Amino acid sequence: MERIRPRTLSGFMELSPARQALFDRMVDSLRRTYSLYGFTALDTPLIESSEILLAKGGGETEKQIYRFTKGDSDLSLRFDLTVPLAKYVAMRAGELTFPFRRFQIGKVYRGERAQRGRFREFYQADIDVIGDGTLDIMNEAEIPSIIYRAFTALGLEGFTIRVNNRKVLNGFFETVGVERPADVMRTIDKLDKIGPEKTAALLESDCGLSAEQAARVMAFIGSTGDKASVLAALDALRGQSATFDEGADELTTLIKYMADFGVPDDHFAIDLTIARGLDYYTGTVYETTMWSHPEIGSICSGGRYDDLAGYYTDRKLPGVGISIGLTRLFYVLDEQGLLNDEVKTAPADALVLPMTDDLSFALRAATALRGEGIRTQVYTEKKKMKARMTYADRLGIPFVVFVGEDEIASGKLAVKNMVSGEQVSLAPDEAAGFIKNALAAGEGARCIKE
Amino acid sequence: MERIRPRTLSGFMELSPARQALFDRMVDSLRRTYSLYGFTALDTPLIESSEILLAKGGGETEKQIYRFTKGDSDLSLRFDLTVPLAKYVAMRAGELTFPFRRFQIGKVYRGERAQRGRFREFYQADIDVIGDGTLDIMNEAEIPSIIYRAFTALGLEGFTIRVNNRKVLNGFFETVGVERPADVMRTIDKLDKIGPEKTAALLESDCGLSAEQAARVMAFIGSTGDKASVLAALDALRGQSATFDEGADELTTLIKYMADFGVPDDHFAIDLTIARGLDYYTGTVYETTMWSHPEIGSICSGGRYDDLAGYYTDRKLPGVGISIGLTRLFYVLDEQGLLNDEVKTAPADALVLPMTDDLSFALRAATALRGEGIRTQVYTEKKKMKARMTYADRLGIPFVVFVGEDEIASGKLAVKNMVSGEQVSLAPDEAAGFIKNALAAGEGARCIKE
Repeated sequence: MERIRPRTLSGFMELSPARQALFDRMVDSLRRTYSLYGFTALDTPLIESSEILLAKGGGETEKQIYRFTKGDSDLSLRFDLTVPLAKYVAMRAGELTFPFRRFQIGKVYRGERAQRGRFREFYQADIDVIGDGTLDIMNEAEIPSIIYRAFTALGLEGFTIRVNNRKVLNGFFETVGVERPADVMRTIDKLDKIGPEKTAALLESDCGLSAEQAARVMAFIGSTGDKASVLAALDALRGQSATFDEGADELTTLIKYMADFGVPDDHFAIDLTIARGLDYYTGTVYETTMWSHPEIGSICSGGRYDDLAGYYTDRKLPGVGISIGLTRLFYVLDEQGLLNDEVKTAPADALVLPMTDDLSFALRAATALRGEGIRTQVYTEKKKMKARMTYADRLGIPFVVFVGEDEIASGKLAVKNMVSGEQVSLAPDEAAGFIKNALAAGEGARCIKE
Repeated sequence: MERIRPRTLSGFMELSPARQALFDRMVDSLRRTYSLYGFTALDTPLIESSEILLAKGGGETEKQIYRFTKGDSDLSLRFDLTVPLAKYVAMRAGELTFPFRRFQIGKVYRGERAQRGRFREFYQADIDVIGDGTLDIMNEAEIPSIIYRAFTALGLEGFTIRVNNRKVLNGFFETVGVERPADVMRTIDKLDKIGPEKTAALLESDCGLSAEQAARVMAFIGSTGDKASVLAALDALRGQSATFDEGADELTTLIKYMADFGVPDDHFAIDLTIARGLDYYTGTVYETTMWSHPEIGSICSGGRYDDLAGYYTDRKLPGVGISIGLTRLFYVLDEQGLLNDEVKTAPADALVLPMTDDLSFALRAATALRGEGIRTQVYTEKKKMKARMTYADRLGIPFVVFVGEDEIASGKLAVKNMVSGEQVSLAPDEAAGFIKNALAAGEGARCIKE
């Protein structure tokens, strides 16, 4: 037979079994955190009508999208989880209870140019809170606490959640007389990369600001350091723009309650340079950067928007949401050696090795262990003892349970701890307890180590 | 703005939040069962090169497949989880440890004609055990115990796992002198639907059997009833075909160990009419039918195959696997009223309702509850008390925690059980314990009720 060389498409992550186990642990951890904040899970189709997905249309999205026809239908693969959410909420606004809090962890598709660490199929882990007509600022204030718990639960300790408020930016630009605020935002977004001098120059050359206006913008975004000073700097600018004052109030509320939400002071900051490119953000915006690897950029971003589903419904649906690009984060953590190899990724806790022809006793032992929640395999291939032990070794199965003539005669199992080498003789029910205790001791390991 | 009517493609399941929660519970339950038997999780791409997916080619598959081009690439969406597994194992045979036990629960795509209960995007929940060169019969013997535990863990009690062996069928056909065994199998597969008379007639008219041959086939597949009698009937036919004898041995081994694997006698049967259409099954085959709804057909099927990845590698990779069509199963259970409404699908365990302007105490209470693992929302929308209680009611959140002036003064929380109406005053740490105890009492509910 002519054979086809097996391969996986470039830009598509496909993991080894052990790495997959770790990835799934990360997903489970995020699900738990999101659930802890009362978000409900959704799972929308991977395929939608192109008309729905491209309602907003234009730009990079349209070029990158996987679009095709099937019969008479013009179909596309989703490129984010936000548009499907907008569709879902618009369709079901009458039956949903608002504020509607949903999380979704799923694959999205973008046909980007393939390069290292860029994926065409990748997981996003999103939460959004959607209001019906209005949505209280406290929903925005709560988000950093979810980011904080999500990453600490994963094992990441050193990171800063940076917040800003688009009303503060827009209001300030208004008072300075900036005519093209979007251009100015795009420019100050580059501050980190190009430095203050070039930024100031670009503000004049590319954004049409006078030298004086540029200086005021630079002074404004130069307000850094502790949160009290930044808030004081904002307070000094109050009274000139209603939008600015509203944004300053919102930011003050956010900062005020952060400790009550359980976020340590050194894990969040106000960063007036954050604008988040997307047009639709209207209030608080978020970015999250790692202390040890700031070059990775933001690992969790989002913000407040006023109109989720304007393309589908005239019902006003404001919301706030964040997204973690999970596939890329996993890839980067792996590259940096930050995935924790102490997390157990073996497919089983115990391997039963029968050493007699009749397997009844060995199988009953395996059934008993499984009944106690111990993940158990029975190895019945006709191989030499050495090959059987190699099997357990290679998979990292922590306990091997030998069942030979002696065990059948005594009704006890020979349970060997593969790490310590210790071997004990135990009745099946004792064996379950013994293994469970040993497993519990090693269960604390989190996915990320720093 | 011109609006686009939001809609979901026909043939694509998209659930309400409560139904999604139940569906996810089913997925979690299957993951736990599969893990208990030492299977490792895989997650392969939704998209593969068409050349890979269609290596086998031809037939219905090719017509139904979602196939498209992106740039220069001829791509397809996977239509099952077996072909991607074959690719995965062929690619990584050198690094995997055999027997390789993997499960995968994921979406697959088939562009079938849309009709009620037929899905174009649906979940399959598969397990397979792949050997390198050989694979012991005990791997086949273990499968019914996995099916049994998977369904009982979901809450389904009344079902029969039917087993047969293709070697028994092929060997018997050999002894009878059947020239087109595939046609005969297809015909006897229809026995349930068309009855014995029509089956016998078709064996002569469509399969080229003589009246005598047809009678022998009918007598053979008429061996029903208890397993001992069927095995005795098989024993009587031994000594005429090596293939038959081997199959009879395998079937005998399967039956022998079923009790040790924990499968009750009334939950499995030998059914000599089961052939499973697919050509590649070579040994044991499985079907699973519900006692209360046999008309639904098999809810879990599979079998033994000798050559998983022959299109990609000359390495012989025999295996055994089963698949549950989860989306269709969920749909059917829902239609039949068999989903258990007692399963808690609320997005939160507790709703904190602050009744003062300053929210600090209420937020600290919520943070404390979350720290104890209680899924907690804080309701801060500026709505009347009635609207707030309606929110908790509609979502089915079992506990409301009121935080007013009295609570702040006393440092205690007013915790109301929304079912019993009982309200108690508790310190935050006591409240956590109180809610946890109450939740634990209701956690046993399984997804399916009969």
